[in-house]
Amino acid sequence: MSDLHNRLLSSALDKDSNDLLAFKKQEFAMPADTIYLDGNSLGPLPNNAKKRVKQVVDKEWGEGLITSWNKHQWIDLPEQTGNKIARLIGAEKKQVICCDSISVNLFKLVNAALQLNSPRSKVITTIDNFPTDGYMVQGISALLGDQRCELVSVEESAILEALDSTTAVLLLTQINFRTGVKLDIELITKRAHDVGALVIWDLAHSAGVMPLQLDHWNVDFAVGCGYKFLNGGPGAPAFLYVAKRWHQDYQQPLQGWMGHSKPFAFSPDYQSAKGVQQNLVGTPSIVSMSLLDAALDVFMDVEIEQLFSKAQQLLNCFIDAAGQLKTLEQFNILTPVDENHRGAQIALQHEHAYEICQALIENGVIADFRAPDILRLGFSPLFLSFTDIVNAAICLSDIMISQQYLQPEFSVKQKVT
Amino acid sequence: MSDLHNRLLSSALDKDSNDLLAFKKQEFAMPADTIYLDGNSLGPLPNNAKKRVKQVVDKEWGEGLITSWNKHQWIDLPEQTGNKIARLIGAEKKQVICCDSISVNLFKLVNAALQLNSPRSKVITTIDNFPTDGYMVQGISALLGDQRCELVSVEESAILEALDSTTAVLLLTQINFRTGVKLDIELITKRAHDVGALVIWDLAHSAGVMPLQLDHWNVDFAVGCGYKFLNGGPGAPAFLYVAKRWHQDYQQPLQGWMGHSKPFAFSPDYQSAKGVQQNLVGTPSIVSMSLLDAALDVFMDVEIEQLFSKAQQLLNCFIDAAGQLKTLEQFNILTPVDENHRGAQIALQHEHAYEICQALIENGVIADFRAPDILRLGFSPLFLSFTDIVNAAICLSDIMISQQYLQPEFSVKQKVT
Repeated sequence: MSDLHNRLLSSALDKDSNDLLAFKKQEFAMPADTIYLDGNSLGPLPNNAKKRVKQVVDKEWGEGLITSWNKHQWIDLPEQTGNKIARLIGAEKKQVICCDSISVNLFKLVNAALQLNSPRSKVITTIDNFPTDGYMVQGISALLGDQRCELVSVEESAILEALDSTTAVLLLTQINFRTGVKLDIELITKRAHDVGALVIWDLAHSAGVMPLQLDHWNVDFAVGCGYKFLNGGPGAPAFLYVAKRWHQDYQQPLQGWMGHSKPFAFSPDYQSAKGVQQNLVGTPSIVSMSLLDAALDVFMDVEIEQLFSKAQQLLNCFIDAAGQLKTLEQFNILTPVDENHRGAQIALQHEHAYEICQALIENGVIADFRAPDILRLGFSPLFLSFTDIVNAAICLSDIMISQQYLQPEFSVKQKVT
Repeated sequence: MSDLHNRLLSSALDKDSNDLLAFKKQEFAMPADTIYLDGNSLGPLPNNAKKRVKQVVDKEWGEGLITSWNKHQWIDLPEQTGNKIARLIGAEKKQVICCDSISVNLFKLVNAALQLNSPRSKVITTIDNFPTDGYMVQGISALLGDQRCELVSVEESAILEALDSTTAVLLLTQINFRTGVKLDIELITKRAHDVGALVIWDLAHSAGVMPLQLDHWNVDFAVGCGYKFLNGGPGAPAFLYVAKRWHQDYQQPLQGWMGHSKPFAFSPDYQSAKGVQQNLVGTPSIVSMSLLDAALDVFMDVEIEQLFSKAQQLLNCFIDAAGQLKTLEQFNILTPVDENHRGAQIALQHEHAYEICQALIENGVIADFRAPDILRLGFSPLFLSFTDIVNAAICLSDIMISQQYLQPEFSVKQKVT
């Protein structure tokens, strides 16, 4: 090991010994010899989620059977889980509910927002938004016609100038999934409101790591993901936020029995439940939701500001180490250096990004690849140490110096999520 | 114990010793001293599902992390689970996919069917259908307007006469959730097709216990439930069937990234996947779906015809025992005695049905209540014995004779699912 490696690792150890969040790492199951830089895509397994699923499956389902809907309050789980998420996104309780997927929740919100802002029909999003956001609006447009829903996609830099008195809905993601660029929710929301538009924020790469104040920022609607920084498990249910001021007039079109004001009256006519509860559609996925509910308890003794601060320090530590190792200069860095303008991830562009990602995984550093040429590293602050980050930077440096990524076994393209 | 009780139990023991499906009971976890007559609402925990969830959570998520999408084929799970269900409903592979809830899947199908049958707009269902089916159509109608979606609800007896050349879609449930009355899928589908209507069958109370031949009966579309007779766990994902002849022209409006032909290309324009795969919307709920996938393996060594036959024998055994015990005469039986016209459940109407249900549960016989006055018993053939059924009938008889159900503790109405 070189002197430089030693110096970097020694400095990381110092940082770890001063890290007030270091104790959280032990709350996760993590395989040996793995540095996990993909918690932004699928968070790792919290120990208490592992315990909880055993409880839910073996005891509540296995022994309680149907009675657990009441005895173990399964019926209240979407609201309970939603309230835990509310704290993490700066929302008062009873405005967030856990249900379905982000995509399905966007369908509800876009339709409801269009109705609230009728006869305006224009939905603005960014060209580089996560595709499902645009796909859902394209589907609504095909269903309702351009006169009721017209999608306009613009560059991130052109959002504000695209807003005008014809804008019905502005649908944006705070953190760009590819580049990690952060949009200013407060400013953009204000400008949208100035022209009479409603905003829907996608918090997929934000919830659990970015300090958010949805209520204070007057956000109208939001969706977010349960399986990224919230660590709820693969395909965990998503969440949805509806600001209290809209509860009275809000009406979403996926009218299912669990969103009825009296689901167990089994009456033939739909009467939507009050508040955010009307966003429930079918029977909630209790086992998956319980995992997320348990995973959220990991956040109980920490503040989002602490998590954000550590994530930025981890990211800076990586940039510093990879910079000193002369590795970064081989990549085009798509993520801003200013921590006010980025999320908790970094996007490194390279023509061999796919192969480099495979070589990293082979060496125990799990990152991910985003087509066509982006190596994406996530800095989830709950379970990563500064030593992890320096070791990952050293690993990347070794791969780039040895050109190990050019070995044929790393070039076989597989499905990558 | 009376002589009658002894005779009934002795006869049940005989039947159990000749029951070729008796060995399946040991494949389920079931609490001691419980007779579970609510497998039609939430199936019990299969032992292999209990093992599988541990594997999925501890190993695949906990150790494999993001790599399990490929390494453990999570990405193929919706299709794999769908194909297992296809066998149980008389469908060739690649026409069934596991995803979302019945309600959300109905939204997809009703919209797609209306589009295929445009400009017709009339959707016929029954007044007594499970409410979510009607609610979803009411939501579509509110969204698209009566000109594009007009809901007409009729009595079960009036379905055929309601069909005419203005009917776009016929949306029916094979087994009435309250009464257990069975509709004739083959006949009704044929009559619907005769007038140019498309059919959507809801198989919530059918899949896993009723012999179905969707392909042979020319059914267009169907949905069904993962957590009832399929035993997939609370809120298990649902399934959806699209007959192969519609795959080319079928287009559903919930356009999410997992239904894209190339989800990981992240291209900005939606291009639907071929076949049934386009019904995927957001990221599938892997943990819940794995439970269902494992639960379906319980069906691998049995035929649906066997299951149906045993369910009917169990139901007849109950009617016979409760009849001899002079219990049935206190109820209005809403379910046909002819096994060609019913599902695997019985509906007993009584003004104190709620209290009787509570008293049964207190005595270890788990049934359910459906407002306003129905006691509902399900006869899931995989884990119930004839002895269970006779003991349940004796328990009900004792409750009716003692009028135990009039005790105040049984009259407190709680949420019931």
